[in-house]
Amino acid sequence: MLSKIAISIGDINGVGLEICIKAHKQISKICNPIYCINSDMLHQAESMLSCKMKNPNLSEIVGNFKIKPSKITKKSGRYSFESFHKAISLCERNKADALVTMPINKQSWEKAGIKYKGHTDYLRDYFKKNAIMMLGYDKLFVSLFTDHIPLREIPKFIKTKDIKRFLLDFYQEDMKKVGVLGINPHSGDNGVLGNEDKFIANAIKKANKKLNRDIFVGPLVPDVAFTKKNREKYKYFVAMYHDQGLAPLKALQFDETINISLNLPIIRASVGHGSAFDIAYKKDSNLSIESYINAIKYCIKNKKGGLKK
Amino acid sequence: MLSKIAISIGDINGVGLEICIKAHKQISKICNPIYCINSDMLHQAESMLSCKMKNPNLSEIVGNFKIKPSKITKKSGRYSFESFHKAISLCERNKADALVTMPINKQSWEKAGIKYKGHTDYLRDYFKKNAIMMLGYDKLFVSLFTDHIPLREIPKFIKTKDIKRFLLDFYQEDMKKVGVLGINPHSGDNGVLGNEDKFIANAIKKANKKLNRDIFVGPLVPDVAFTKKNREKYKYFVAMYHDQGLAPLKALQFDETINISLNLPIIRASVGHGSAFDIAYKKDSNLSIESYINAIKYCIKNKKGGLKK
Repeated sequence: MLSKIAISIGDINGVGLEICIKAHKQISKICNPIYCINSDMLHQAESMLSCKMKNPNLSEIVGNFKIKPSKITKKSGRYSFESFHKAISLCERNKADALVTMPINKQSWEKAGIKYKGHTDYLRDYFKKNAIMMLGYDKLFVSLFTDHIPLREIPKFIKTKDIKRFLLDFYQEDMKKVGVLGINPHSGDNGVLGNEDKFIANAIKKANKKLNRDIFVGPLVPDVAFTKKNREKYKYFVAMYHDQGLAPLKALQFDETINISLNLPIIRASVGHGSAFDIAYKKDSNLSIESYINAIKYCIKNKKGGLKK
Repeated sequence: MLSKIAISIGDINGVGLEICIKAHKQISKICNPIYCINSDMLHQAESMLSCKMKNPNLSEIVGNFKIKPSKITKKSGRYSFESFHKAISLCERNKADALVTMPINKQSWEKAGIKYKGHTDYLRDYFKKNAIMMLGYDKLFVSLFTDHIPLREIPKFIKTKDIKRFLLDFYQEDMKKVGVLGINPHSGDNGVLGNEDKFIANAIKKANKKLNRDIFVGPLVPDVAFTKKNREKYKYFVAMYHDQGLAPLKALQFDETINISLNLPIIRASVGHGSAFDIAYKKDSNLSIESYINAIKYCIKNKKGGLKK
């Protein structure tokens, strides 16, 4: 039986729904998608895009308003949140096996009075679990110890105890070696360029001791962490902050990258890109569906056990 | 007439001299290398490596001691500094057209009482000029607004006036568009994730105004700055800090990358890697000479005018 994947449609003024419509035929061969949207809204988008889904399975969301391509609106913010919430509840009630989220717009959420910075933030609060953000593609995955915080605040989060807990929450049984990055240039060069890297070293030691296996390796010198040679050694990396991990990852591979939440009671994957208001509803033939297809595939593969905790 | 390139041989206990010996025949076809080393020391290394240079042109350095592969020693630290200093003086006295440096070991310098963190640091002090560090390969170059400082100290360097000066010092006439990175995740998302990015935006505006051309573009969102799409737009980037620029660069291309000093009265290039004590004098057939060859080629191409200021 095909997996049932709940799809939260993201900001309806962005590219999310366009990707869903474009990819529907292809993904329907490998899963049963359940789109969290009502038929009126879907038809409105379909007519704007001159493109239709064949027999979509919908989980209706209340709300009917005019789609405004590329506009930050309270209505689209609220609607994307409702769609997200419905998709979560389908997973919780076992009506769906996993959740794929299309990109929301943070400012639209703000306009709608939704205080969360993004999906992962909400999932942390909703499940009261330390959800872990991991991005990547089949050959390389990078998880983020800290994510949406200003650069100046990063050092104060670098504490042995917290990093150790993160590493243990992150660890999955199919992982062999995980590269853990330092925080300072040259991982501090023995303290000459900053002293926080020693807390990372201690956390690695303690986490390995707890697992009774040398899974975590580091602190890796950040600027050479993602060289070809290292990518042959490690498939999984832990970065200390957002840009340290994502800039090299996205330089290597952007279109295929997906965003995964680990350490939650449900399986959730997302596209790696944003709502791309600049190209929404422009029927741009370059609009890539690769990341979406990869997110679906990830969910199918991991729906039971696997990376779920 | 072939260019004369002064070569400072780096830490003699590391891989630098091995690379020079291995590449001598090849580079002698395109330049006249002048190795800053005395013949005794060279012969010692040659016999350890079972490999000889044919008719090398030497600029002798005082000192004769036993090479200790992979060891941090006061003698090797002092010798690499003397070699570097001789090479600089050959350029200053027009005995050489440009300088290529092989990697030193910071801890050996420390042992020898040399207080500088590296070549660039010394060049700044020696020439009393704001030397700019730029790394890259033929398709992509990244310069660093800050380099060897702890992460926690970066934000306090982000000042409009200093960034503007850096951009103007960095600018070369053959540059069309230069991507300038923000500092915070999503370049601060309008201040939600940090407020320093606005100083970068102001610096870009002021530098462009001064040049009367829109050369500098940004602040680019750091995690997507180096995507393939952006690398098609920009060949030159300015990163705000060491790992922000170097981690993506070295993920994309490590072996070919070189390190260049801009804004100095002499032309200087270096290999992009370190002294690699782990493989020194092991006659490792994987030891890459690509970065060295590229550094030589860069110097030949830029020896007159060009990127010199």
